[in-house]
Amino acid sequence: MSSDRASLLQALRDRLDPAGLQAGADIEMRFRKDWYAPLDPQPPLAVARPRDTGEVAAVLAACHRYGQPVVPQGGLTGLAAGATPRGGELVLSLERLRGVEAIDPQAGTMTVRAGTTLQAAQEAAREAGWLLALDLGARGSCQIGGNLATNAGGNRVIRYGMAREQVLGLEAVLADGTVLSALNKMQKNNAGYDLRQLFVGSEGTLGVITRAVLRLAPLPACTQTALCALARYEDVVALLRLAQRRLSGRLSAFEVMWADYYGIVTGRVPGMRAPLPAGHPFYVLLDLQGDDAAQDGAAFEALLEAALEAGLIADAALATSQKEADALWALRDAVAEFPQRWAPNAAFDVSLPIGSIGTFADSLRARVLAAWPQAELVNFGHVGDSNLHVSVHLPGATAASFPEAEIEALVYGVVGEFAGSISAEHGIGLHKKPYLHHSRTPAELALMRTLKQALDPRGILNPGRVFDAG
Amino acid sequence: MSSDRASLLQALRDRLDPAGLQAGADIEMRFRKDWYAPLDPQPPLAVARPRDTGEVAAVLAACHRYGQPVVPQGGLTGLAAGATPRGGELVLSLERLRGVEAIDPQAGTMTVRAGTTLQAAQEAAREAGWLLALDLGARGSCQIGGNLATNAGGNRVIRYGMAREQVLGLEAVLADGTVLSALNKMQKNNAGYDLRQLFVGSEGTLGVITRAVLRLAPLPACTQTALCALARYEDVVALLRLAQRRLSGRLSAFEVMWADYYGIVTGRVPGMRAPLPAGHPFYVLLDLQGDDAAQDGAAFEALLEAALEAGLIADAALATSQKEADALWALRDAVAEFPQRWAPNAAFDVSLPIGSIGTFADSLRARVLAAWPQAELVNFGHVGDSNLHVSVHLPGATAASFPEAEIEALVYGVVGEFAGSISAEHGIGLHKKPYLHHSRTPAELALMRTLKQALDPRGILNPGRVFDAG
Repeated sequence: MSSDRASLLQALRDRLDPAGLQAGADIEMRFRKDWYAPLDPQPPLAVARPRDTGEVAAVLAACHRYGQPVVPQGGLTGLAAGATPRGGELVLSLERLRGVEAIDPQAGTMTVRAGTTLQAAQEAAREAGWLLALDLGARGSCQIGGNLATNAGGNRVIRYGMAREQVLGLEAVLADGTVLSALNKMQKNNAGYDLRQLFVGSEGTLGVITRAVLRLAPLPACTQTALCALARYEDVVALLRLAQRRLSGRLSAFEVMWADYYGIVTGRVPGMRAPLPAGHPFYVLLDLQGDDAAQDGAAFEALLEAALEAGLIADAALATSQKEADALWALRDAVAEFPQRWAPNAAFDVSLPIGSIGTFADSLRARVLAAWPQAELVNFGHVGDSNLHVSVHLPGATAASFPEAEIEALVYGVVGEFAGSISAEHGIGLHKKPYLHHSRTPAELALMRTLKQALDPRGILNPGRVFDAG
Repeated sequence: MSSDRASLLQALRDRLDPAGLQAGADIEMRFRKDWYAPLDPQPPLAVARPRDTGEVAAVLAACHRYGQPVVPQGGLTGLAAGATPRGGELVLSLERLRGVEAIDPQAGTMTVRAGTTLQAAQEAAREAGWLLALDLGARGSCQIGGNLATNAGGNRVIRYGMAREQVLGLEAVLADGTVLSALNKMQKNNAGYDLRQLFVGSEGTLGVITRAVLRLAPLPACTQTALCALARYEDVVALLRLAQRRLSGRLSAFEVMWADYYGIVTGRVPGMRAPLPAGHPFYVLLDLQGDDAAQDGAAFEALLEAALEAGLIADAALATSQKEADALWALRDAVAEFPQRWAPNAAFDVSLPIGSIGTFADSLRARVLAAWPQAELVNFGHVGDSNLHVSVHLPGATAASFPEAEIEALVYGVVGEFAGSISAEHGIGLHKKPYLHHSRTPAELALMRTLKQALDPRGILNPGRVFDAG
C-alpha cells in the first residue's frame, strides 16, 4: 500500500468510530457488489460508514485531499452497476444515516436521512396519515438517498411524478467536503438556482445526498383496479387519454402488458391465473386512487363502459375486492420472476414518445428476430409515463454463450433511431455508459462533463459512472 | 464607440436581416425597460432580434468573442428587474422566435418557440383539446421563454406544478453560441444529468432558452368554485388538507385572502361586491376542476359541508354559475388594481413553510407597524403552495418619500428568521439580489457562482442579475 493510502486510512480511522471503517480483510462481501453488477476481483480500499453529515463531510474532505475515488452506496438495488466498487475505490455507505427526522403535518413534508429505506419512510408517513407516493419493487431494501441519486420512478409516476418531483429540500456533501444544506419545505422557491435538481439523478457523481425533505400527499382512502384487453396500440393510447380525462387527477397507474408478456406470465409462472383469456394483443392494468369509494367506483365503471362503447377495449375485469386487485397486480409484479425463470436474458428500461412505443416494439421484435430467430421477447411497462421495459431471452443459450453485448448494441441503436432514451428510470451507471450517445447529443455530453469538472475537479465522486471524464 | 463594439455591431449586421438589429437612435423605447424596473439613462448598445435558433447562436457567439454583456428579453412582464438593460448592454429579444411548432396528441406534448406568448400557447392547446396548465395574470404579454427562464408559478401550481414541472424538453443556446437541443417528449428519461433544470429558473444567466416541449394535461370539462370565511389560520391549513384529501387530485386552486386584503378590495375597488361580509379573519377561494359536473358538484358540496360540520369554516359562498365563479375570482384578481390605487407600496412575493405563514404575517405586521405606525398591509397568496404576497403601503407618502429600501430590508430580514424564501415565484433579477443571503447559505451561493463560471466563463449572460460573479 502506498504511503498516501495508509495516511488516508489513518485519517479516516481517526475521524470515524470503530464500526465506521472496514479495510483489508475486514471488508464485508455485501459492500462489494450491487444487485446487478459482477464482482470486481480486486477489493475496494475500504468501506466508510459515517453516522452523520459531519462524518460524511470528513470522509469526502480526506478523499479529496488524497485524490481517492469514492463510490457512494445506498441499498444496492440498482440495475445499472452504479454502486459496485472497482478495485481500490473507497465505498461510502450511507446505511448508518438512517431514520425519519421529522414529519411536518402543516407543511405536508417529511425530513429523512439518506440511509432510510423507502419502506421505512413510507410506513412512517402512513402512520402520520400521509402518503409518501414514491414506490418501487425494491422498497424494502432501497434507500431514500439512492432513490434520489438515481431519480427513481416506479408505478405511481403518472400521478405523483418521479423522485425528482417529490423532493422539496436536499442536503448534500460536495466532493471537497463542503456541506450544502438546503432543507427547503416550500413548494415554491425561486430564490436563485435550483441546486436540488443537480444532485437528483446524477448517480453520486456530483455530490453525496445526506438528507432530504420530501413532499407528502394525502393518503387515499380507496383504490379501484381493472384489467382491460385491447386489440391495437392506438387503442391503448386512446384509453390512456380517456382515463386521464375522465378520472381527472385520480388515475394512479397505467401499466401495459403486451401479449408476449401476458402469455408467458399466465402460462409459465406457477400459481398465476389469467383473469382475462390470453391472446389479446394488449392488456392494460389501471388504478384509480381516491377518497370516496362509492363516487370513485361509479366514475371508474363509467370510464370502462365508455371505453367499451367506444370500441377501445375488447374485454375488462374489474376487481371487486382488495384480493382481486392484488391478483391483477400480481400479473405485473411477476416480472420479479424473470431473472430466474427466463435466464439468460437482456433486460431494457427505455422510454419513447408515447405514440411511438407500439411501432418501436414491433420494429425491435423484427430486428431481434432477424438476428436471433430463436429469440423470445416480452414487452411491458409504465406506458402512461412513456416507459417501456423489454426483455430478450434466447432459449437454449447459457450465461457464457448469451450475446448480451450484441443484443444491447442492437436495442440501443433502435432506441436512438426512435429518438428515445436508453434509460427511462434505472439510470446509466457503468453498464449503459457505452450507449449514452444514442440518447444525448455531443453538446449535452460536453455540458455534463463541464458540470462534473466544475463540481468535482479531482474526479473522485463515482468516477467513470454515467460518462467518462474524457 | 470602441473599435471592438463597432466590429461586433458589424458582425451582427452581417448575420441578421435588416429588422434583426437596432442600434443607436434606432432602438425602440419598449426594449429599454420591463414592467418593473426604472429606465437606465444610458441606452443599450443594440437590440438583436433573431428569427431562429441559428441566429440566436450567432448573436451569442459574436458577443462571447467580444465579451459583450447580453440581456435576454421575453415579454418584459417580470417583477424583479431581470430583463431591463443597463447602459451599453446588448438586448437579445426573443419576440421573433414565435409560434407553436407542434402538438403531439399521442405524447400529450406541445413544442413551442420561446417568443410565443403564454396565451397564444394556451389557446393553441385548447383548440387541440388540451390544457396548457401554466397560467398567470400576464398571460397576454409574457412569453414561454421568460416563463421558463423565471420558473413561473401562478394560480394552478397546487395541481399542476411550477413551470419547471411542465417542461419535458428544452433547447437552449449557451454563452459561447453552442446549441443544446434536447427536445425530449418523454415523462421519464434518466439518461444522464437533467440539463433542463439548470436553465429553468436561472433568469437567463446560464443560457438562452429558444424552444421547449411542454407537458399538456386533459382539458377539464367543469369547474366548481367557492369562497369560504374562516376564523383562524390553523383552520385555513386544516381546510387545505381536507380539500386535498376529499377532492383527491382535483383541487386546482387554493387562494387565501387575509381580512386586510378582503376589506380593501371590497371596500375601495369600484364595482367589486362582497359575496361574504367583510370582517372575517381569512377568506379562502378554492376551485375544483374535473370532468363530471354532477359528481364533482356533489364532491365539492360534501367537502364544504364537512368543513362546516368540523367548524373549520364560518361561512361559504358556492358559485352556481360561471358568472358567479368569475365574480369570486375577481376578488383575487383585483390585486392588479393595487399599483394604481395603493401607491406607493412595496410588494413582496415570499414563501414559508405552510404552517408558519399565519405567524409570519402577524409578526411582520407588528414589526412594520412598530417602524411605521401609519402603514397599511395586505396579505394574500397561493397559500396551498406556501406562497404569500404581502404589500405595504404608507398613506400620505409620495414616491420620493416612500422608504422602499428600508421596508424591504425589514421584510426580508423577517423572512430569513422564519426560514422562508425571499422569492416564491417572481425571481431575483437585479431588484432582490441584495437580499438573497437571507434565503441561501454561503455554500449555496458559492455553488451558484461555480455553475455560472463553468457555463459562462466570460460572464456575458445577464451579468449581475440574481447574484454578483464576485
